[in-house]
Amino acid sequence: MPRQVDHDGRRAAIAEAVSAIAAERGFAEVTIRAVAARAGASTSAVTHYVSGRDELVRTAVRRALDVQRGRLEAETHGREPGEALRAVVRWSVLGAGERAHRLWLAIVVGARSEPVVRAELDAFNRWWDALLRRLVHALDPAPADPGSVVDALDVVISGLVMVAFEETEPWSRARRERAVDALLAPLGL
Amino acid sequence: MPRQVDHDGRRAAIAEAVSAIAAERGFAEVTIRAVAARAGASTSAVTHYVSGRDELVRTAVRRALDVQRGRLEAETHGREPGEALRAVVRWSVLGAGERAHRLWLAIVVGARSEPVVRAELDAFNRWWDALLRRLVHALDPAPADPGSVVDALDVVISGLVMVAFEETEPWSRARRERAVDALLAPLGL
Repeated sequence: MPRQVDHDGRRAAIAEAVSAIAAERGFAEVTIRAVAARAGASTSAVTHYVSGRDELVRTAVRRALDVQRGRLEAETHGREPGEALRAVVRWSVLGAGERAHRLWLAIVVGARSEPVVRAELDAFNRWWDALLRRLVHALDPAPADPGSVVDALDVVISGLVMVAFEETEPWSRARRERAVDALLAPLGL
Repeated sequence: MPRQVDHDGRRAAIAEAVSAIAAERGFAEVTIRAVAARAGASTSAVTHYVSGRDELVRTAVRRALDVQRGRLEAETHGREPGEALRAVVRWSVLGAGERAHRLWLAIVVGARSEPVVRAELDAFNRWWDALLRRLVHALDPAPADPGSVVDALDVVISGLVMVAFEETEPWSRARRERAVDALLAPLGL
Protein backbone atom coordinates (compact mmCIF):
# COMPACT_ATOMS: atom_id res chain seq x y z
CA MET A 1 0.00 0.00 0.00
CA PRO A 2 1.46 3.41 -0.90
CA ARG A 3 2.32 5.71 1.96
CA GLN A 4 -0.60 8.01 2.72
CA VAL A 5 0.29 11.69 2.46
CA ASP A 6 -1.83 14.14 4.42
CA HIS A 7 -1.85 16.89 1.80
CA ASP A 8 -4.17 19.18 3.77
CA GLY A 9 -2.00 18.82 6.84
CA ARG A 10 1.13 19.64 4.83
CA ARG A 11 -0.48 22.67 3.23
CA ALA A 12 -1.53 23.88 6.67
CA ALA A 13 1.96 23.32 8.11
CA ILE A 14 3.55 25.26 5.25
CA ALA A 15 1.11 28.18 5.59
CA GLU A 16 1.69 28.14 9.34
CA ALA A 17 5.45 28.34 8.79
CA VAL A 18 5.05 31.34 6.46
CA SER A 19 2.87 33.16 9.02
CA ALA A 20 5.26 32.37 11.87
CA ILE A 21 8.31 33.70 10.02
CA ALA A 22 6.44 36.79 8.79
CA ALA A 23 5.05 37.57 12.25
CA GLU A 24 8.48 37.23 13.86
CA ARG A 25 10.74 38.77 11.23
CA GLY A 26 8.68 40.19 8.37
CA PHE A 27 7.86 38.97 4.86
CA ALA A 28 11.34 39.80 3.54
CA GLU A 29 12.55 36.78 5.54
CA VAL A 30 9.96 34.45 4.02
CA THR A 31 11.91 32.33 1.53
CA ILE A 32 11.07 28.83 0.31
CA ARG A 33 14.21 27.61 2.08
CA ALA A 34 13.29 29.27 5.41
CA VAL A 35 9.71 28.01 5.20
CA ALA A 36 10.84 24.45 4.47
CA ALA A 37 13.24 24.55 7.43
CA ARG A 38 10.52 25.91 9.71
CA ALA A 39 7.96 23.31 8.56
CA GLY A 40 10.49 20.48 8.87
CA ALA A 41 10.19 19.71 5.16
CA SER A 42 12.41 19.77 2.08
CA THR A 43 12.24 22.71 -0.33
CA SER A 44 10.83 20.37 -2.98
CA ALA A 45 8.06 19.33 -0.58
CA VAL A 46 7.16 23.04 -0.34
CA THR A 47 7.32 23.70 -4.09
CA HIS A 48 5.15 20.62 -4.65
CA TYR A 49 2.22 22.67 -3.33
CA VAL A 50 2.96 26.13 -4.72
CA SER A 51 4.26 27.48 -8.02
CA GLY A 52 6.76 29.76 -6.31
CA ARG A 53 7.29 32.28 -3.54
CA ASP A 54 4.40 34.56 -4.59
CA GLU A 55 1.88 31.75 -4.37
CA LEU A 56 3.43 30.59 -1.11
CA VAL A 57 2.91 34.04 0.41
CA ARG A 58 -0.53 34.58 -1.14
CA THR A 59 -1.86 31.26 0.15
CA ALA A 60 -0.57 31.80 3.68
CA VAL A 61 -1.78 35.41 3.98
CA ARG A 62 -5.20 34.50 2.57
CA ARG A 63 -5.50 31.58 4.97
CA ALA A 64 -4.53 33.72 7.99
CA LEU A 65 -6.92 36.55 7.04
CA ASP A 66 -9.70 34.02 6.34
CA VAL A 67 -9.32 32.74 9.89
CA GLN A 68 -9.78 36.29 11.22
CA ARG A 69 -12.72 36.83 8.89
CA GLY A 70 -14.35 33.61 10.07
CA ARG A 71 -13.90 34.59 13.70
CA LEU A 72 -15.31 38.06 13.10
CA GLU A 73 -18.31 36.59 11.28
CA ALA A 74 -18.92 34.24 14.19
CA GLU A 75 -18.57 37.10 16.70
CA THR A 76 -21.14 39.27 14.89
CA HIS A 77 -23.58 36.55 13.80
CA GLY A 78 -27.07 37.04 15.19
CA ARG A 79 -26.14 40.05 17.28
CA GLU A 80 -27.89 43.40 16.98
CA PRO A 81 -25.69 46.03 15.30
CA GLY A 82 -24.39 47.82 18.42
CA GLU A 83 -23.52 44.52 20.12
CA ALA A 84 -21.94 43.24 16.92
CA LEU A 85 -19.73 46.35 16.60
CA ARG A 86 -18.61 46.06 20.22
CA ALA A 87 -17.81 42.40 19.53
CA VAL A 88 -15.76 43.35 16.44
CA VAL A 89 -13.70 45.81 18.43
CA ARG A 90 -13.24 43.47 21.38
CA TRP A 91 -12.21 40.54 19.19
CA SER A 92 -9.82 42.65 17.10
CA VAL A 93 -8.16 44.28 20.08
CA LEU A 94 -8.44 41.74 22.89
CA GLY A 95 -9.38 38.40 21.35
CA ALA A 96 -7.15 37.94 18.30
CA GLY A 97 -3.97 37.73 20.37
CA GLU A 98 -0.41 38.98 20.09
CA ARG A 99 0.64 36.58 17.34
CA ALA A 100 -2.25 37.74 15.12
CA HIS A 101 -1.34 41.37 15.83
CA ARG A 102 2.30 40.76 14.91
CA LEU A 103 1.22 39.11 11.68
CA TRP A 104 -1.13 42.01 10.94
CA LEU A 105 1.74 44.50 11.40
CA ALA A 106 3.94 42.35 9.12
CA ILE A 107 1.16 42.31 6.48
CA VAL A 108 0.75 46.09 6.64
CA VAL A 109 4.51 46.63 6.35
CA GLY A 110 4.91 43.88 3.72
CA ALA A 111 2.10 45.33 1.59
CA ARG A 112 4.32 48.32 0.84
CA SER A 113 6.86 46.25 -1.08
CA GLU A 114 5.02 43.02 -1.97
CA PRO A 115 2.09 43.29 -4.42
CA VAL A 116 0.87 39.82 -3.41
CA VAL A 117 0.53 40.93 0.22
CA ARG A 118 -1.02 44.23 -0.88
CA ALA A 119 -3.70 42.39 -2.89
CA GLU A 120 -4.68 40.16 0.04
CA LEU A 121 -4.72 43.11 2.46
CA ASP A 122 -6.90 45.12 0.05
CA ALA A 123 -9.36 42.24 -0.31
CA PHE A 124 -9.58 41.89 3.47
CA ASN A 125 -10.00 45.64 3.89
CA ARG A 126 -12.88 45.71 1.39
CA TRP A 127 -14.64 42.98 3.36
CA TRP A 128 -13.86 44.69 6.70
CA ASP A 129 -15.08 48.07 5.47
CA ALA A 130 -18.34 46.56 4.17
CA LEU A 131 -18.88 44.79 7.52
CA LEU A 132 -18.39 47.98 9.54
CA ARG A 133 -20.50 50.08 7.17
CA ARG A 134 -23.36 47.59 7.23
CA LEU A 135 -23.39 47.46 11.03
CA VAL A 136 -23.00 51.23 11.54
CA HIS A 137 -25.82 51.99 9.07
CA ALA A 138 -28.06 49.53 10.93
CA LEU A 139 -27.53 51.23 14.31
CA ASP A 140 -30.69 52.44 16.00
CA PRO A 141 -30.76 55.40 16.42
CA ALA A 142 -28.82 55.92 13.18
CA PRO A 143 -25.70 58.08 13.65
CA ALA A 144 -25.82 61.53 12.03
CA ASP A 145 -22.61 60.82 10.09
CA PRO A 146 -22.13 57.04 9.67
CA GLY A 147 -18.90 57.47 7.68
CA SER A 148 -17.21 59.24 10.55
CA VAL A 149 -18.30 56.52 13.01
CA VAL A 150 -16.71 53.90 10.71
CA ASP A 151 -13.52 56.00 10.51
CA ALA A 152 -13.44 56.44 14.30
CA LEU A 153 -13.81 52.67 14.79
CA ASP A 154 -10.93 52.05 12.37
CA VAL A 155 -8.74 54.54 14.23
CA VAL A 156 -9.57 53.11 17.65
CA ILE A 157 -8.91 49.50 16.59
CA SER A 158 -5.69 50.28 14.72
CA GLY A 159 -4.50 52.50 17.54
CA LEU A 160 -5.05 49.85 20.19
CA VAL A 161 -3.17 47.29 18.12
CA MET A 162 -0.33 49.72 17.38
CA VAL A 163 0.28 51.01 20.93
CA ALA A 164 1.06 47.45 21.99
CA PHE A 165 4.10 47.54 19.68
CA GLU A 166 5.21 51.04 20.59
CA GLU A 167 5.45 50.64 24.33
CA THR A 168 8.15 48.77 26.22
CA GLU A 169 5.63 47.39 28.68
CA PRO A 170 2.57 46.02 26.88
CA TRP A 171 -0.68 47.43 28.22
CA SER A 172 -2.49 45.07 30.54
CA ARG A 173 -5.78 43.56 29.39
CA ALA A 174 -7.63 45.69 31.97
CA ARG A 175 -5.99 48.84 30.65
CA ARG A 176 -6.91 48.00 27.05
CA GLU A 177 -10.48 47.19 28.12
CA ARG A 178 -10.76 50.57 29.85
CA ALA A 179 -9.45 52.30 26.71
CA VAL A 180 -11.91 50.37 24.49
CA ASP A 181 -14.83 51.37 26.72
CA ALA A 182 -13.72 54.99 27.02
CA LEU A 183 -13.30 55.39 23.26
CA LEU A 184 -16.49 53.54 22.25
CA ALA A 185 -18.84 55.27 24.70
CA PRO A 186 -18.82 58.63 22.82
CA LEU A 187 -19.64 56.72 19.60
CA GLY A 188 -22.81 55.49 21.29
CA LEU A 189 -21.42 51.96 21.60
CA MET B 1 45.63 75.11 2.34
CA PRO B 2 44.11 71.75 3.36
CA ARG B 3 40.72 70.88 1.95
CA GLN B 4 37.99 71.93 4.35
CA VAL B 5 35.75 69.05 5.42
CA ASP B 6 32.25 69.93 6.57
CA HIS B 7 32.02 67.33 9.34
CA ASP B 8 28.59 68.44 10.53
CA GLY B 9 27.25 68.28 7.01
CA ARG B 10 28.67 64.79 6.53
CA ARG B 11 27.24 63.55 9.81
CA ALA B 12 23.86 64.95 8.81
CA ALA B 13 24.04 63.33 5.36
CA ILE B 14 24.91 59.95 6.89
CA ALA B 15 22.07 60.15 9.43
CA GLU B 16 19.72 61.22 6.64
CA ALA B 17 20.76 58.21 4.56
CA VAL B 18 20.07 55.85 7.51
CA SER B 19 16.60 57.35 8.03
CA ALA B 20 15.77 57.22 4.34
CA ILE B 21 16.71 53.55 4.00
CA ALA B 22 14.92 52.61 7.25
CA ALA B 23 11.76 54.50 6.27
CA GLU B 24 11.67 52.88 2.85
CA ARG B 25 12.79 49.33 3.60
CA GLY B 26 13.26 48.89 7.36
CA PHE B 27 16.28 48.78 9.66
CA ALA B 28 17.30 45.29 8.50
CA GLU B 29 18.40 46.96 5.24
CA VAL B 30 20.54 49.56 7.01
CA THR B 31 24.12 48.43 6.46
CA ILE B 32 27.25 50.58 6.42
CA ARG B 33 27.62 49.74 2.72
CA ALA B 34 24.02 50.73 1.87
CA VAL B 35 24.30 53.95 3.89
CA ALA B 36 27.56 54.91 2.19
CA ALA B 37 26.04 54.29 -1.24
CA ARG B 38 22.96 56.34 -0.34
CA ALA B 39 25.04 59.22 1.07
CA GLY B 40 27.38 59.16 -1.92
CA ALA B 41 30.35 58.38 0.34
CA SER B 42 32.84 55.55 0.82
CA THR B 43 32.29 53.03 3.63
CA SER B 44 35.44 54.36 5.33
CA ALA B 45 33.97 57.88 5.23
CA VAL B 46 30.97 56.47 7.14
CA THR B 47 33.05 54.51 9.68
CA HIS B 48 35.16 57.64 10.26
CA TYR B 49 32.18 59.06 12.18
CA VAL B 50 30.80 55.99 13.93
CA SER B 51 32.31 52.99 15.70
CA GLY B 52 30.07 50.56 13.84
CA ARG B 53 26.54 49.78 12.72
CA ASP B 54 25.00 50.13 16.21
CA GLU B 55 26.33 53.65 16.64
CA LEU B 56 25.31 54.48 13.08
CA VAL B 57 21.72 53.45 13.81
CA ARG B 58 21.63 55.00 17.30
CA THR B 59 22.86 58.38 16.07
CA ALA B 60 20.42 58.51 13.19
CA VAL B 61 17.37 57.42 15.22
CA ARG B 62 18.20 59.84 18.03
CA ARG B 63 18.64 62.69 15.57
CA ALA B 64 15.31 61.94 13.84
CA LEU B 65 13.41 61.64 17.13
CA ASP B 66 15.10 64.81 18.45
CA VAL B 67 13.74 66.67 15.44
CA GLN B 68 10.20 65.46 16.28
CA ARG B 69 10.72 66.35 19.94
CA GLY B 70 11.91 69.84 19.01
CA ARG B 71 8.90 70.38 16.79
CA LEU B 72 6.50 69.13 19.47
CA GLU B 73 8.13 71.42 22.05
CA ALA B 74 7.74 74.37 19.68
CA GLU B 75 4.10 73.44 18.98
CA THR B 76 3.21 73.31 22.68
CA HIS B 77 5.35 76.23 23.93
CA GLY B 78 3.33 79.01 25.57
CA ARG B 79 -0.02 77.37 24.79
CA GLU B 80 -2.60 76.59 27.46
CA PRO B 81 -2.89 72.82 28.10
CA GLY B 82 -5.97 72.10 25.95
CA GLU B 83 -4.56 74.04 23.01
CA ALA B 84 -1.17 72.38 23.48
CA LEU B 85 -2.71 68.88 23.43
CA ARG B 86 -4.66 69.66 20.28
CA ALA B 87 -1.40 70.93 18.74
CA VAL B 88 0.41 67.71 19.73
CA VAL B 89 -2.25 65.58 18.04
CA ARG B 90 -2.44 67.76 14.96
CA TRP B 91 1.34 67.87 14.52
CA SER B 92 1.73 64.13 15.07
CA VAL B 93 -1.07 63.16 12.71
CA LEU B 94 -1.18 65.94 10.12
CA GLY B 95 2.04 67.93 10.43
CA ALA B 96 4.86 65.40 10.69
CA GLY B 97 4.32 64.06 7.18
CA GLU B 98 4.38 60.67 5.49
CA ARG B 99 8.14 60.23 5.57
CA ALA B 100 8.17 60.75 9.38
CA HIS B 101 5.29 58.27 9.74
CA ARG B 102 7.12 55.67 7.66
CA LEU B 103 10.22 56.14 9.79
CA TRP B 104 8.12 55.84 12.96
CA LEU B 105 6.66 52.54 11.74
CA ALA B 106 10.18 51.32 10.89
CA ILE B 107 11.38 52.29 14.39
CA VAL B 108 8.48 50.45 16.05
CA VAL B 109 9.10 47.34 13.95
CA GLY B 110 12.90 47.62 14.27
CA ALA B 111 12.70 47.96 18.06
CA ARG B 112 11.52 44.35 18.23
CA SER B 113 14.83 42.99 16.96
CA GLU B 114 17.36 45.81 17.50
CA PRO B 115 18.16 46.80 21.10
CA VAL B 116 19.71 50.08 19.91
CA VAL B 117 16.42 51.10 18.25
CA ARG B 118 14.46 49.87 21.28
CA ALA B 119 16.54 52.06 23.62
CA GLU B 120 15.98 55.19 21.52
CA LEU B 121 12.26 54.47 21.17
CA ASP B 122 11.94 53.93 24.94
CA ALA B 123 13.72 57.22 25.68
CA PHE B 124 11.41 59.04 23.28
CA ASN B 125 8.33 57.35 24.77
CA ARG B 126 9.35 58.39 28.30
CA TRP B 127 9.60 61.99 27.16
CA TRP B 128 6.33 61.76 25.19
CA ASP B 129 4.48 60.19 28.09
CA ALA B 130 5.73 62.88 30.50
CA LEU B 131 4.65 65.61 28.05
CA LEU B 132 1.13 64.21 27.68
CA ARG B 133 0.75 63.56 31.40
CA ARG B 134 1.88 67.07 32.31
CA LEU B 135 -0.56 68.67 29.86
CA VAL B 136 -3.52 66.42 30.76
CA HIS B 137 -3.02 67.02 34.48
CA ALA B 138 -2.97 70.77 33.84
CA LEU B 139 -6.33 70.75 32.00
CA ASP B 140 -9.02 72.98 33.53
CA PRO B 141 -11.40 71.48 34.46
CA ALA B 142 -9.21 68.52 35.42
CA PRO B 143 -10.41 65.22 33.89
CA ALA B 144 -11.84 62.67 36.34
CA ASP B 145 -9.34 60.05 35.16
CA PRO B 146 -6.26 61.72 33.64
CA GLY B 147 -4.56 58.37 32.93
CA SER B 148 -7.36 57.24 30.66
CA VAL B 149 -7.28 60.56 28.76
CA VAL B 150 -3.54 60.03 28.14
CA ASP B 151 -4.23 56.47 26.95
CA ALA B 152 -7.04 57.63 24.68
CA LEU B 153 -4.76 60.28 23.13
CA ASP B 154 -2.09 57.62 22.52
CA VAL B 155 -4.65 55.33 20.85
CA VAL B 156 -6.06 58.11 18.66
CA ILE B 157 -2.63 59.31 17.49
CA SER B 158 -1.26 55.81 16.84
CA GLY B 159 -4.48 54.78 15.12
CA LEU B 160 -4.47 57.75 12.76
CA VAL B 161 -0.84 57.08 11.82
CA MET B 162 -1.48 53.34 11.36
CA VAL B 163 -4.64 53.56 9.20
CA ALA B 164 -2.63 55.46 6.61
CA PHE B 165 -0.51 52.33 6.11
CA GLU B 166 -3.39 49.88 6.19
CA GLU B 167 -5.55 51.40 3.48
CA THR B 168 -4.87 51.28 -0.25
CA GLU B 169 -6.06 54.85 -0.69
CA PRO B 170 -4.55 57.13 1.95
CA TRP B 171 -7.14 59.20 3.80
CA SER B 172 -7.38 62.77 2.60
CA ARG B 173 -6.24 65.51 4.94
CA ALA B 174 -9.87 66.63 5.37
CA ARG B 175 -10.91 63.11 6.36
CA ARG B 176 -8.09 62.85 8.92
CA GLU B 177 -8.99 66.29 10.29
CA ARG B 178 -12.62 65.22 10.72
CA ALA B 179 -11.49 62.05 12.52
CA VAL B 180 -9.16 64.04 14.81
CA ASP B 181 -11.97 66.43 15.72
CA ALA B 182 -14.54 63.65 16.23
CA LEU B 183 -12.24 61.65 18.49
CA LEU B 184 -10.91 64.61 20.52
CA ALA B 185 -14.28 66.23 21.22
CA PRO B 186 -15.43 63.55 23.72
CA LEU B 187 -12.10 63.99 25.56
CA GLY B 188 -13.02 67.63 26.12
CA LEU B 189 -10.40 68.77 23.61
